[in-house]
Amino acid sequence: MSNSVRVAVLGATGAVGTELLELLDSRQFPLASLKLLASPRTAGQTILFKGENLVIEAVDEKSFVDVDIVLASAGSSTSKQWVKTIVDSGAVIIDNSSAFRMDKDVPLIVPEINPTAAEHHKGIIANPNCTTILLGMAIWPLHQVQPIKRIVVATYQSASGAGARAMEELKTQAQAILNQLEPKAESFPYPLAFNLFPHNSSLNELGYCEEEMKMINETRKIFNDTQIQVSATCIRVPVLRAHSEAVNLEFEQPFAVEKAREILKTAPGVTLVEDWQNNYFPMPMDATGKDDVLVGRIRQDLSHPCGLELWLCGDQIRKGAALNAVQIAELLVKNNLLRPQAVAV
Amino acid sequence: MSNSVRVAVLGATGAVGTELLELLDSRQFPLASLKLLASPRTAGQTILFKGENLVIEAVDEKSFVDVDIVLASAGSSTSKQWVKTIVDSGAVIIDNSSAFRMDKDVPLIVPEINPTAAEHHKGIIANPNCTTILLGMAIWPLHQVQPIKRIVVATYQSASGAGARAMEELKTQAQAILNQLEPKAESFPYPLAFNLFPHNSSLNELGYCEEEMKMINETRKIFNDTQIQVSATCIRVPVLRAHSEAVNLEFEQPFAVEKAREILKTAPGVTLVEDWQNNYFPMPMDATGKDDVLVGRIRQDLSHPCGLELWLCGDQIRKGAALNAVQIAELLVKNNLLRPQAVAV
Repeated sequence: MSNSVRVAVLGATGAVGTELLELLDSRQFPLASLKLLASPRTAGQTILFKGENLVIEAVDEKSFVDVDIVLASAGSSTSKQWVKTIVDSGAVIIDNSSAFRMDKDVPLIVPEINPTAAEHHKGIIANPNCTTILLGMAIWPLHQVQPIKRIVVATYQSASGAGARAMEELKTQAQAILNQLEPKAESFPYPLAFNLFPHNSSLNELGYCEEEMKMINETRKIFNDTQIQVSATCIRVPVLRAHSEAVNLEFEQPFAVEKAREILKTAPGVTLVEDWQNNYFPMPMDATGKDDVLVGRIRQDLSHPCGLELWLCGDQIRKGAALNAVQIAELLVKNNLLRPQAVAV
Repeated sequence: MSNSVRVAVLGATGAVGTELLELLDSRQFPLASLKLLASPRTAGQTILFKGENLVIEAVDEKSFVDVDIVLASAGSSTSKQWVKTIVDSGAVIIDNSSAFRMDKDVPLIVPEINPTAAEHHKGIIANPNCTTILLGMAIWPLHQVQPIKRIVVATYQSASGAGARAMEELKTQAQAILNQLEPKAESFPYPLAFNLFPHNSSLNELGYCEEEMKMINETRKIFNDTQIQVSATCIRVPVLRAHSEAVNLEFEQPFAVEKAREILKTAPGVTLVEDWQNNYFPMPMDATGKDDVLVGRIRQDLSHPCGLELWLCGDQIRKGAALNAVQIAELLVKNNLLRPQAVAV
């Protein structure tokens, strides 16, 4: 059982939690045990996993004593509330929230980009923001060949980023509008169906929302490059589940389009989708449920001799969240990076 | 009657044609007569205008002899087919298609930007592409104060850009998906509902679609600035009618955000929409049916000391097409720029 791991999922009923369980199953994660944790409100409900009905337990001080890895996707406040208990119990928390991402003692990891950052964890590893992961996957392979100087990105973010309830709300709103009724907005401040709006996270004094600052700051941290310049405009669009991004890259020297295409054709976790004859490129409907980030429309930036333009779509819940978290867990197991308690099992 | 003008609308039944008629009415355009022209297929149908049922006539060689201005919105091939007849008849064609926009003898006009270009027309004036008009409206006032060096723009284009049928198709697709049925795509190559994809106009050898090249070339022509560098990514989104754009501007020198805000607050045809407290900025649902282009989220580009970011939405059918065409017609009347035949009436 030395390679088997005791896992707890904190927040198992949400959109990301559901996907975490699916991935633990389909990727045959070496589970010694699986514990589903949630607030007392949902405790007692059951979730089917590998043919067995698992009962959701209310999280408490003793929940983590027999756990090696906690996959947390219950939001920042829940992660902050339980992190000390988790770490003191000897488990590693792989946290989907933004609570610890910019903490200098917490590695922020995309396994295809900076796996070695995991070596120095102190019990907490942060899973990056979804748009940042998808962007990083597409541009890191290019950055390795010739450093990117500047990134200007505009996002097209689906409802799933705001959770399962927001996805339902988008559908309910669309039906209301089709029936010529007034759409109701609860998860979002404004109706999203047949509409779009700037990402509604808090704005800083420079006018950037949190989502945009995550793309800027997290990209620098994951790339371990404080010099890379990033600007972002984050927009919520009436798509259910996959995010898209229009990415403008500036290099120090010209970067041949053909070279970029060759690099991305074989990059891990990336699928090049470019059928120029049929005007067929990455679309959310194709990225949904896929592990890979779909990248295409790689072309010379006509406004800058050292620029490239590209377009990407990726499943926000999968590589943008749950898949990346499970990959981090796999990395910990493979490289014996569980904490002493776990190693001693 | 010297100030009254004989107008023909070519393509009166389409999304833009319908709006042209509404604008001729609501703006009290000085009509001496109004003729509705279309293909023999729709000839004979009637359209209500100012309480009168106007019969659509089939266009022929004699349609334009008693006409001063032709507002054409029936597509490039129809415009190309009839342009000689129109010009030979002494009328001016204000053409919504892309047929003549880049012709050096044809002025390409946004009345708020380059009205004097109309002075040298030879019977043909081109109405720019919708995304180009909306972009120009928002950035021209800044360009006047300090020249823009480079523009990187990503668009969020509604179904209306592909016509009234595409708007219906988006609704039908959404209903199909809500009913868990397969959506059918006819106006577009792929389903648009709850999805999005790069603009499906023809691609050139550099990988840019026609829509993107229009933004690049038409902006330079309207601004009469061959030096301005432009790159564009055009994306179709599941919105019914207004287009949005994420715009990154680079100047030679830093451009203070407050100064840009002050300029756009009083710019003609622009409404500044920035409620930072409530995270309320331009949205397609608010831009629909509005004459002004809504601009907001003006902020320093964090990746470049001389950069500004801004966000805009505008009604694609209105300022993006029909309103701009009617404004050009008004400009011709006001400045006595009709052709000799017309002046002689």
